[in-house]
Amino acid sequence: MKKKIGRVTLPSEENFLKETKELMERWGADAIRDSDGTKLDDDIKQLDAKIYTTYFVARGHNEFAESHMDECQQLYLMSLFNTALTDTLEVHFMKGYFEEQLRPDYIHDPKKYWEVIDRTTGEVLDTNDWEVSKKDNRVLITKAIPWHEYTVSFLVYAIWDPTQMYNHITNNWGDKPHDIPFDVRQPYSNEYMKTYLNQWLTENPDTDVVRFTTFFYHFTLVFNNLGKEKFVDWFGYGASVSVAALDAFEQEKGYRLRPEDIVDQGYYNTAFRIPTQAYLDYIDFVQQFVAKEAKELVDIVHESGKEAMMFLGDNWIGTEPYGKYFESIGLDAVVGSVGGGATLRMIADIPHVRYTEGRFLPYFFPDTFYEGNNPVIEANENWVTARRALLRNPVDRIGYGGYLSLAYQFPDFVAYIEKVTGEFREIYDIIKGVTPYSGLKVAILNSWGGLRTWQTHMVAHALWYKQIYSYLGVLESLSGAAVDVTFISFDDVINDGVPVDVDVIINAGDAGTAFSGGEYWTNEKLVTTIRAWIHNGGGFIGIGEPTAYQHEGHYFQLATALGIDKELGFSLSTDKYFVTPVEEHFISADSTQFNFGEGMKNIFALSEETEIIEYSNGEVHLSSHSFGKGRAVYIAGLPYNEENTRLLMRALYYAANKEEEFHKWHASNIYCEVHAYPSIRKMAIVNNSMKEQTTVVFDGEGNSKEVTLEPSEIRWEDFSNES
Amino acid sequence: MKKKIGRVTLPSEENFLKETKELMERWGADAIRDSDGTKLDDDIKQLDAKIYTTYFVARGHNEFAESHMDECQQLYLMSLFNTALTDTLEVHFMKGYFEEQLRPDYIHDPKKYWEVIDRTTGEVLDTNDWEVSKKDNRVLITKAIPWHEYTVSFLVYAIWDPTQMYNHITNNWGDKPHDIPFDVRQPYSNEYMKTYLNQWLTENPDTDVVRFTTFFYHFTLVFNNLGKEKFVDWFGYGASVSVAALDAFEQEKGYRLRPEDIVDQGYYNTAFRIPTQAYLDYIDFVQQFVAKEAKELVDIVHESGKEAMMFLGDNWIGTEPYGKYFESIGLDAVVGSVGGGATLRMIADIPHVRYTEGRFLPYFFPDTFYEGNNPVIEANENWVTARRALLRNPVDRIGYGGYLSLAYQFPDFVAYIEKVTGEFREIYDIIKGVTPYSGLKVAILNSWGGLRTWQTHMVAHALWYKQIYSYLGVLESLSGAAVDVTFISFDDVINDGVPVDVDVIINAGDAGTAFSGGEYWTNEKLVTTIRAWIHNGGGFIGIGEPTAYQHEGHYFQLATALGIDKELGFSLSTDKYFVTPVEEHFISADSTQFNFGEGMKNIFALSEETEIIEYSNGEVHLSSHSFGKGRAVYIAGLPYNEENTRLLMRALYYAANKEEEFHKWHASNIYCEVHAYPSIRKMAIVNNSMKEQTTVVFDGEGNSKEVTLEPSEIRWEDFSNES
Repeated sequence: MKKKIGRVTLPSEENFLKETKELMERWGADAIRDSDGTKLDDDIKQLDAKIYTTYFVARGHNEFAESHMDECQQLYLMSLFNTALTDTLEVHFMKGYFEEQLRPDYIHDPKKYWEVIDRTTGEVLDTNDWEVSKKDNRVLITKAIPWHEYTVSFLVYAIWDPTQMYNHITNNWGDKPHDIPFDVRQPYSNEYMKTYLNQWLTENPDTDVVRFTTFFYHFTLVFNNLGKEKFVDWFGYGASVSVAALDAFEQEKGYRLRPEDIVDQGYYNTAFRIPTQAYLDYIDFVQQFVAKEAKELVDIVHESGKEAMMFLGDNWIGTEPYGKYFESIGLDAVVGSVGGGATLRMIADIPHVRYTEGRFLPYFFPDTFYEGNNPVIEANENWVTARRALLRNPVDRIGYGGYLSLAYQFPDFVAYIEKVTGEFREIYDIIKGVTPYSGLKVAILNSWGGLRTWQTHMVAHALWYKQIYSYLGVLESLSGAAVDVTFISFDDVINDGVPVDVDVIINAGDAGTAFSGGEYWTNEKLVTTIRAWIHNGGGFIGIGEPTAYQHEGHYFQLATALGIDKELGFSLSTDKYFVTPVEEHFISADSTQFNFGEGMKNIFALSEETEIIEYSNGEVHLSSHSFGKGRAVYIAGLPYNEENTRLLMRALYYAANKEEEFHKWHASNIYCEVHAYPSIRKMAIVNNSMKEQTTVVFDGEGNSKEVTLEPSEIRWEDFSNES
Repeated sequence: MKKKIGRVTLPSEENFLKETKELMERWGADAIRDSDGTKLDDDIKQLDAKIYTTYFVARGHNEFAESHMDECQQLYLMSLFNTALTDTLEVHFMKGYFEEQLRPDYIHDPKKYWEVIDRTTGEVLDTNDWEVSKKDNRVLITKAIPWHEYTVSFLVYAIWDPTQMYNHITNNWGDKPHDIPFDVRQPYSNEYMKTYLNQWLTENPDTDVVRFTTFFYHFTLVFNNLGKEKFVDWFGYGASVSVAALDAFEQEKGYRLRPEDIVDQGYYNTAFRIPTQAYLDYIDFVQQFVAKEAKELVDIVHESGKEAMMFLGDNWIGTEPYGKYFESIGLDAVVGSVGGGATLRMIADIPHVRYTEGRFLPYFFPDTFYEGNNPVIEANENWVTARRALLRNPVDRIGYGGYLSLAYQFPDFVAYIEKVTGEFREIYDIIKGVTPYSGLKVAILNSWGGLRTWQTHMVAHALWYKQIYSYLGVLESLSGAAVDVTFISFDDVINDGVPVDVDVIINAGDAGTAFSGGEYWTNEKLVTTIRAWIHNGGGFIGIGEPTAYQHEGHYFQLATALGIDKELGFSLSTDKYFVTPVEEHFISADSTQFNFGEGMKNIFALSEETEIIEYSNGEVHLSSHSFGKGRAVYIAGLPYNEENTRLLMRALYYAANKEEEFHKWHASNIYCEVHAYPSIRKMAIVNNSMKEQTTVVFDGEGNSKEVTLEPSEIRWEDFSNES
């Protein structure tokens, strides 16, 4: 039988032709890419493979940028908090910022574009009450109120592209020139980017796929005075701001943004902040602009007969693939980095492209590929977590990044990837376009809704933070589970109600964040819609501090439905008698121990009608409560692991009042899962662990059999029953 | 040498004369008391001792009360939360309440005195939109909005005194009649209480001290439908409410209270709630009334030649001994229960009485005095914790409660109390009226200020709650420490600034509570006053969530002074580099391990200028930061133990910038303390532990010597140096 090939992209590099050919053959690769810092030889470009070439739109052209420094990109920044000791106060507003990256904008009048704010009262100072000293980047406040705190919000030019800055500093690139980012909203830059792209396309005839890395605006990444990261927000629109943008915004939306609309008390509207209308307007405005300009570039690429692919990262701001303007860009493909199941789905579910590609881990870099380390371990972990998600909705291609020559030195790794790529193609060939069996439809409810599908609770892309892992586990578990997942916003519910096909709503997050909802929970329409929906049979799962906002006698605004609330001290005088867990419960039937991650303190049951499932340290961490025909489950936190995935699945079925359907296409062993594809009468039984596992497998009729799977095995079986 | 006697009160009981005399002699008692449920024989009353007799003012007279049921005491209660499923809703407002204790008031028009509140919007319903059905204690809401939640606030009569109810149910008193509490604000009750007191005084010639237990209104104690405690607030004014009181309040204060002013969303204005102006007005109103009426009773007692003593508990509401009307009552004495140092100081520091008395533990009850148990252990713990506080300010007398016959069966206990009573008299004789050495003055800052001196963070008297022990430790540590302590309110600071003699301000509590301060921290005057004060050299210690209120870029409003803030998710995008503790620090110099109790999550340092002293689990739990000439210390929580007492003392000296004075009158061993009395040139070196301890002792000049103390020993020494 001829070995299948395709759907795999390799990085390559100079002087590596023979080995590239060997690895292409073994891994079945049909595309070759360069990387940031590597170039492909001409003879590699002649191989029987598509050639991807990295393309930077708005950086890497210093010859242009240096002669148009007034078209540099801009940011609004906030100074440190400064306490006035007398009625005058000097604010060194650049303190803590990296002067190699950022330069105050003195071209535009600070009195028009900057703000000095009294942070004790929140009042904006009259522009007559402060002066800027340009020579030492200082604001002198002349009418300060002693012991008030002040901040200066100011405009800067960004004179170094953040990704290049990061690589430059990390890799000690010394006197290599700094890529200056220019703003394609400006006339010369806009013209230049198109002219240059046309020229480049002519000069690169061997390129099949232009890999935009990326378009115009980098996610917010600001370094400190020591040249280290100071602020990072993978969703941040900070670097898309400019005088030109502010003026255009006013033109388009009919009102002018204040610096504070961007600076946001120094929180800079991160995804954890409940977005203001001004900020929502602003990101809509940027998305629309980015889509329009990106479309022009994509059209040019298409005219040259090549494909246009976008990297989901770096300068991706404004492209939001789940936003309403993305389709209009007309991209052929999106490629992104796969850290696990949730990030795989974030890529695989992107609509309006012909194909998606996941860049898998590990990167072929010396931090993993060093003597004595076994890169197969990381590759295996990455693969089994991503595979769960692939089995729900596969990306169309997989690929790798880094130095192929490094990976080549690890024969076990080469052999393992040969197995992985084969397994990927097998999965793809069987299930692409086939609807997998879903037992339930789950809606994740937060401030962002569909716009941030598979992108909640993230700070920097796929990095671990103490404050997020207990929520990210929910997404990771769902990414490979036999349920449909949709992301809805509070405004969606307020305007349109709960979608009719949803079985369970999940609200997960810390109080006051965009993910929990904060003051949204005082919205009468929101709470009544969800109360009615649960009471009529809907399922609700609250994780962490769901529906939290202190108001009229409850902290959790759906406390009555949830059957629990959080003790803030106000109700300590009320005896808490309901502390005894039920002896057994459907939700915890497979649990051997509980892991709520950061957990949550001081949760208590409101009555004996609350089914307490876990109670320890004087507080409830897992419970369920009936509300009319519906059920509401509380979970203190849910980091990702196999036990918690099972616990969540059981909680979903219980909340939905569908326990009897839980065993359809089910594996009893928590390390195994069954993915069924009724329309093609196939199922995959997978072992998500690195050990042999024995499990009882249930089909859609409830028939069962015992199966033993090799470590990480995927086993395909046909089934004959109709449905 | 003649054995000293006096300053000790014993309980006695019937048929126990000989043993009472023996114990009086051994313990040096000079007073005998009855208890709730015990009576004294006539021959005991003839002993050479003062006789205390328990007196109930407003209960225990059912022959009167039953014929004046319209003068029963009243309460405002709130129903459960009820969700409307349609546009009508039935609320069974008595659900969950104990009908033997509480009876709806249908004498007064519910339409005038009750409120139905839409808890989804906070709106009060028009009285035309609901009707009361008296026969089944039901409110029918006729214009409900589906899926809104509703509560009914309603008036009840209290038909059973809570203390008697508790004893009755706990001890299975069967068909013993229920004491009906009557309201002395009512005409017949008011007349009756005076008439009866006069009569009683005549009938009890042997009584020397009338022990009021207590006056008119019980702290709020409401039982549930199962006859168990449902709500308990030792500070609660709930049972002082009545139609008569509401009318008198309107007369006096010029506005009418709403039921919601009392019911407070179901939180009932517990001490953890930041008091509203209406509630402050109300407690002032009650205090004034109680003081006036109590004074009349005390005057009657004095006219009979007897003393008037008040028990600090039970029906003590309105007497607040640190309030502005207490002095006018004219009491001779206050007696209260001593759970440790803080409760001892709560009694000992009461002004405007001739003497105070502490009732020590254990109570002579079978729960401690049973075969096989050693009551000396509890007595010893109680004594050494209280002794620390006695050495700062002694109560004038100590006493015991319960069944003396029970204690008599434990000879080791009898011997131990003989030692304790002797030690107490020795302390008293040496230091009463002598100012102890204080190194610093500390102000505890919260919403209640001086009114609740030594009474912060308490729910029910001296009971353990998970949410309070991490703060109560501060009071307990301070109660026996060589510092002066004052309690100030936010309004005190706003109106009068920080008292000039204060060295360190402590703000301790959970966010949003009266103890932390909540929205007070947006008060410009408050924050600027304290910022200025710290900057000019003051010390500030924040514990838990000090100054917490999300506003203008900070969660802790004194974040800039403290050098730390709490991460709520909004600033996750800002890198947190400051995670490295200092190698050693003055504050932790005696610490072998840390115990922050419940601790606090997600605290981070704002800059490298913050001295991190303890960092674990990705967060700061102990730090210090300079702010101008002052210092601000952060502690995540501080349960009481010897290490934490030392840590707090060091933190206080460090915050006050007086480290060099820390070793004055100091014991190096944390289980020992030195109490110095410069004006009489004496010092007490105490061993607070139950083991032998060796310590270096420093005098006021810095001279030191090593001392070894027996378990729990107190050693008095003279010193000769001047000052």
